[in-house]
Amino acid sequence: MLRYLTAGESHGKGLAAILEGMPAGLRIDTDLINRELQRRQAGYGRGKRMEIEKDTAAILSGVRSGQTLGGPIAIQIINKDATIDELPMITRPRPGHADLAGALKYGFRDMRNVLERSSARETAARVAIGAMCKVFLKEFEIDITSHVINIGGVTANTKKLSFGEIKALSVKSPVMCADETASKSMMAKIDKAIEEKDSLGGIFEVLIIGVPVGLGSYVHWDRKLDADLAKAVMSIQAVKSVEIGMGLGVASKSGSQVHDEIFYDQERGFYRKTNNAGGLEGGMSNGEPIILRAAMKPIATLGKPLKSVDINTKQKSEAAIERADVCAVPAAGVVAENACAVEMAGALLDKFGGDSLNEIKRNYHAYLEELKKY
Amino acid sequence: MLRYLTAGESHGKGLAAILEGMPAGLRIDTDLINRELQRRQAGYGRGKRMEIEKDTAAILSGVRSGQTLGGPIAIQIINKDATIDELPMITRPRPGHADLAGALKYGFRDMRNVLERSSARETAARVAIGAMCKVFLKEFEIDITSHVINIGGVTANTKKLSFGEIKALSVKSPVMCADETASKSMMAKIDKAIEEKDSLGGIFEVLIIGVPVGLGSYVHWDRKLDADLAKAVMSIQAVKSVEIGMGLGVASKSGSQVHDEIFYDQERGFYRKTNNAGGLEGGMSNGEPIILRAAMKPIATLGKPLKSVDINTKQKSEAAIERADVCAVPAAGVVAENACAVEMAGALLDKFGGDSLNEIKRNYHAYLEELKKY
Amino acid sequence: MLRYLTAGESHGKGLAAILEGMPAGLRIDTDLINRELQRRQAGYGRGKRMEIEKDTAAILSGVRSGQTLGGPIAIQIINKDATIDELPMITRPRPGHADLAGALKYGFRDMRNVLERSSARETAARVAIGAMCKVFLKEFEIDITSHVINIGGVTANTKKLSFGEIKALSVKSPVMCADETASKSMMAKIDKAIEEKDSLGGIFEVLIIGVPVGLGSYVHWDRKLDADLAKAVMSIQAVKSVEIGMGLGVASKSGSQVHDEIFYDQERGFYRKTNNAGGLEGGMSNGEPIILRAAMKPIATLGKPLKSVDINTKQKSEAAIERADVCAVPAAGVVAENACAVEMAGALLDKFGGDSLNEIKRNYHAYLEELKKY
Amino acid sequence: MLRYLTAGESHGKGLAAILEGMPAGLRIDTDLINRELQRRQAGYGRGKRMEIEKDTAAILSGVRSGQTLGGPIAIQIINKDATIDELPMITRPRPGHADLAGALKYGFRDMRNVLERSSARETAARVAIGAMCKVFLKEFEIDITSHVINIGGVTANTKKLSFGEIKALSVKSPVMCADETASKSMMAKIDKAIEEKDSLGGIFEVLIIGVPVGLGSYVHWDRKLDADLAKAVMSIQAVKSVEIGMGLGVASKSGSQVHDEIFYDQERGFYRKTNNAGGLEGGMSNGEPIILRAAMKPIATLGKPLKSVDINTKQKSEAAIERADVCAVPAAGVVAENACAVEMAGALLDKFGGDSLNEIKRNYHAYLEELKKY
Repeated sequence: MLRYLTAGESHGKGLAAILEGMPAGLRIDTDLINRELQRRQAGYGRGKRMEIEKDTAAILSGVRSGQTLGGPIAIQIINKDATIDELPMITRPRPGHADLAGALKYGFRDMRNVLERSSARETAARVAIGAMCKVFLKEFEIDITSHVINIGGVTANTKKLSFGEIKALSVKSPVMCADETASKSMMAKIDKAIEEKDSLGGIFEVLIIGVPVGLGSYVHWDRKLDADLAKAVMSIQAVKSVEIGMGLGVASKSGSQVHDEIFYDQERGFYRKTNNAGGLEGGMSNGEPIILRAAMKPIATLGKPLKSVDINTKQKSEAAIERADVCAVPAAGVVAENACAVEMAGALLDKFGGDSLNEIKRNYHAYLEELKKY
Repeated sequence: MLRYLTAGESHGKGLAAILEGMPAGLRIDTDLINRELQRRQAGYGRGKRMEIEKDTAAILSGVRSGQTLGGPIAIQIINKDATIDELPMITRPRPGHADLAGALKYGFRDMRNVLERSSARETAARVAIGAMCKVFLKEFEIDITSHVINIGGVTANTKKLSFGEIKALSVKSPVMCADETASKSMMAKIDKAIEEKDSLGGIFEVLIIGVPVGLGSYVHWDRKLDADLAKAVMSIQAVKSVEIGMGLGVASKSGSQVHDEIFYDQERGFYRKTNNAGGLEGGMSNGEPIILRAAMKPIATLGKPLKSVDINTKQKSEAAIERADVCAVPAAGVVAENACAVEMAGALLDKFGGDSLNEIKRNYHAYLEELKKY
Repeated sequence: MLRYLTAGESHGKGLAAILEGMPAGLRIDTDLINRELQRRQAGYGRGKRMEIEKDTAAILSGVRSGQTLGGPIAIQIINKDATIDELPMITRPRPGHADLAGALKYGFRDMRNVLERSSARETAARVAIGAMCKVFLKEFEIDITSHVINIGGVTANTKKLSFGEIKALSVKSPVMCADETASKSMMAKIDKAIEEKDSLGGIFEVLIIGVPVGLGSYVHWDRKLDADLAKAVMSIQAVKSVEIGMGLGVASKSGSQVHDEIFYDQERGFYRKTNNAGGLEGGMSNGEPIILRAAMKPIATLGKPLKSVDINTKQKSEAAIERADVCAVPAAGVVAENACAVEMAGALLDKFGGDSLNEIKRNYHAYLEELKKY
Repeated sequence: MLRYLTAGESHGKGLAAILEGMPAGLRIDTDLINRELQRRQAGYGRGKRMEIEKDTAAILSGVRSGQTLGGPIAIQIINKDATIDELPMITRPRPGHADLAGALKYGFRDMRNVLERSSARETAARVAIGAMCKVFLKEFEIDITSHVINIGGVTANTKKLSFGEIKALSVKSPVMCADETASKSMMAKIDKAIEEKDSLGGIFEVLIIGVPVGLGSYVHWDRKLDADLAKAVMSIQAVKSVEIGMGLGVASKSGSQVHDEIFYDQERGFYRKTNNAGGLEGGMSNGEPIILRAAMKPIATLGKPLKSVDINTKQKSEAAIERADVCAVPAAGVVAENACAVEMAGALLDKFGGDSLNEIKRNYHAYLEELKKY
């Protein structure tokens, strides 16, 4: 069982995370984690903070001479902007944020106590954890990427692109969009939002290739891999919808248009010509690429603040303004990619057991061999 | 902590479930559970099985003289069609089902071993568990309903209807749709699908009212209520998308069009005039109704079977045909409603603790009193 | 992950349990479960109930044609004495029982609501679950037994007996004690307690052979196998002490007298000549037999009742009398044996993963092969 | 639900821990944590390491202006002796340690990879977590202490001492023993062990006062508080036995000598004159002090090493020698005290729910008021 805890406030000393359940013998490269952290910080439309600090992770434990020991891995990301004690009180809750509900729940009079933890800054810790899981998955030739397919209503056309093309093209785009034309329109849209002191959301897609058949299970509702992925992604700040494969589109089609027919070839084994299921049938991976999309709402802190109420005076007032991004859909995609990586690594470990990378690989390849004989 | 396990195969002796964590002193009415089970069996477009058996639940433990004892509640639903040992072997996997991935994962040569458990028959157990949670929630004036808003592309217009209207109108519709005109078109669409030996999916919506502010939490990713609801609903057979509030729509709007401004009134306390957040901000309930939608793919067993492969001969062949529904969107809505009820009851117990209904109510009302003073 | 829930009151309709996480392809024999249930009911000094009903388990799900399907296994044991609604109210709590604390916690005025679930009757469900785990462990040549080594201060001398001898001898003894002389003294002691309307406790020992090295882990406190075994056994009604290997004896010895020196032989690999560690070092199995002992307090219902207080009148009064055993140490040993079986099966599944018995065996044997090469 | 993860190797950069589930509004004093860490480092018979470094904890998150925020609390203890990369390979496993089983399990050729995490150094992190829980419990007037009652067979006589006396007297003793005479004999025994290059174990006792009736529950085996305490304590390095109340002694007594009769007094409510149950009946606290004892085996690293085998040559050789204590029973007591504090805090939160200290206190006191009316 893979499990992890994250900790840390947006302007506290830093973020921390502990990942428990990683096998021994995995080569972990801090550079790789940092690269992932920097992907999370990139993207057109981000706020000033992304400029002042470049996150770097320090591994405190669980790794010796570059290899995991099988014990818990503690990671730390120091905040360069650790001003939590000097920052002003917040009494005018921002609509769309945790501010008000959080203050009522915990009995706070200063909503900074809420937003410091509810902030998406926390996702840096999740990305660090996910980055390690990606390294692990790579050992099994499982690769994950994400790209942006909608910002503020501007949609990309990437249907015909392969995983490799999407990965290569989106990395060049300031909005992590694999469609160059759409990319430019998205940026224009963001410019306009900046001008209007408004904010934008959008849609990102997570793609996972190399997944063996049979991760997750149909035998109990809480062991379904699609359900775990949905939870992991819906838990990301501002995500309001999660879809798998054809997603919402299935509602308007008939069965004969939706289900992916089954074929067999001695070389490839069983395979599909379509992938409307998004790689998941019966709560299990079916051997096809996993495809997941999520919609993120616009950033809830607006330069032109929305109507709110001061919690002390109960008078109408404008919502507080915190330094914020105007659009963070690419970043959310990176976070989702990494959140999914944790779930995939967990599902792999559930199926194959094992305490060391060697043992897991041995079990894994024996399973693949068995599948060939099926 | 509320937890439960379900068990049972589609044509085995029956379904079983154990719910652990319900407080003592709750009056549980078997009739109410049975009514919920029957709602799950209803809906235009269901197969023959729904006619031959009417599910009824028997409570085996955890209740004495009609009241819960605080211990685990065991429930049982006997299958009238318990023919599992006589039913034929299945060797031609149905696209869209767990059949193939399940057989490869578990090493089965007879895919009946998969489908008997992967079948949505299992959801009857979840509904029985959820029905008890609904009874519990009712003690706190939290009410849940579901209705169908799309079948095969026919969409209902229910934007202007209240919770009460939706509940009252949908109960009259054979497709559990609160829009009478759409209801008829949906039925016509189903008739056509039956004729064409095809199947249909659609979209249902779950509505929850009376939810206090502050259930769930932003402090850790896996404690977010929206994430738990998403997992519960995505785990339902055939669901491919889950949305909260404005859902997918947030992607194309700007922040000023999405976030629900905050108002205050001495009588009502803090409130909103819109509910695009669907009652959930920062992973917590914000006091507004919770709104969740999910898309269900068409039933994967088609009268006019899709292309498949015989797993023994590896030859092309038509997928197996099992007795099945043509459309089960209303039923899926009922299942989701109950799956959400379990999550809501769990979230309530997490916040208010308590071992007996009295104790929980005491804690609950003291919190509401405190909110008034905020 | 192996998990299970049990349900059921002592005089309710019956007991129920669901075991989730068992692999597919295991042959489960109801007879074997029943034999284990009957071992739990045996033992000199048991009350009348053991005569009126002989427990038998019915498997409701998870098994088809005698083999597990990989899904949850639901088990049911019907109570022949299902008089819960007619039994009198209890208002005079029995010292040593859950009666008083339970009533205060849950707010009950009738302590029957407590004792119906706190009763050791519940352990029948745990034994049924454990019996299935024993069947599973047998596939890996792991065998478990228990025997009684103390009743009311009469101690057995079994130091020189092998696992096989203990198993064979204790089965012949009415008190499940492998020392025939002690066995007779124990029975005499029980006779005396019956005469004096008093009750007796004692000590039982659980032995597990065939355990591979490396189950459990030192990497996190809650993954230690000795800790899990201690929890499982301490959770058994009336158990007040749990020891592993030399147990309490370690306190009075020096290190050189306690630790088991390490030897190597090409045939056997690493081995020990002593087993003071009881097969567990660093929270892991070390390849030697696991040895665990627990002390059970005397039955808390006395024929000659202890002083108590009527919860309504608050007047001094004698504790209530329920039908009860005078001594149940052998039964507790059987329960512990089965509770440990669940933990061992869980630890095995954690290390070796796998969805079918074949897959687990493949992973298991590959590990053993690897150990030989170490 | 209170949960935590710890991380860190003995000579790595440091130890880390994250505690999730602590309510908001608790004043946390780092000094108090440090005092607890230093108690863990004290005790006659400790090795050199305790001299070279004095542990201090740094709180990285979860606390603002000295008060908890309700979010995860990350703690860090920097190792002053962070030489993990320079330390020599270990190939001669020490009997009694995790060395051999750990190396075989994880496939390591250097057993330093095992002992760096299996070392009791890890318990410093657990103590830091427990110290915060003690602060929390203090708000409810629940106090915990531990003292040593046996070292190497020398036993203390503390039967007649009160909680306060034990606390006051043991703090003055270099071996944390409340019996001055025994204390001196224990030290003499340790001196002799040092001389003989041997090591010693012993027995410590944990006492918890102020516990309300009704923490834990009898309704499910894994919710029993005694079982949770047993797991927490058995998981501590070198512990081989855990007893509650009269513990092992119950085996040789009759029921009338063991069970604590029940009395009532208007002032005190229900109470007992004896406490053989150690404050726990039916898996719940019964309002009396909780008493738990555990036996710790002698330190497994001996100055005069035991027989072992070199894992490379397979030749007989002496076990490796690591810098170690000769006796660490007092320290183990401190660790147990803190491990129990976490379980108690968790049990309290389970029963009373609540997100802020105020809310929990409100729920808690309302329960106590209700008990008075019972």
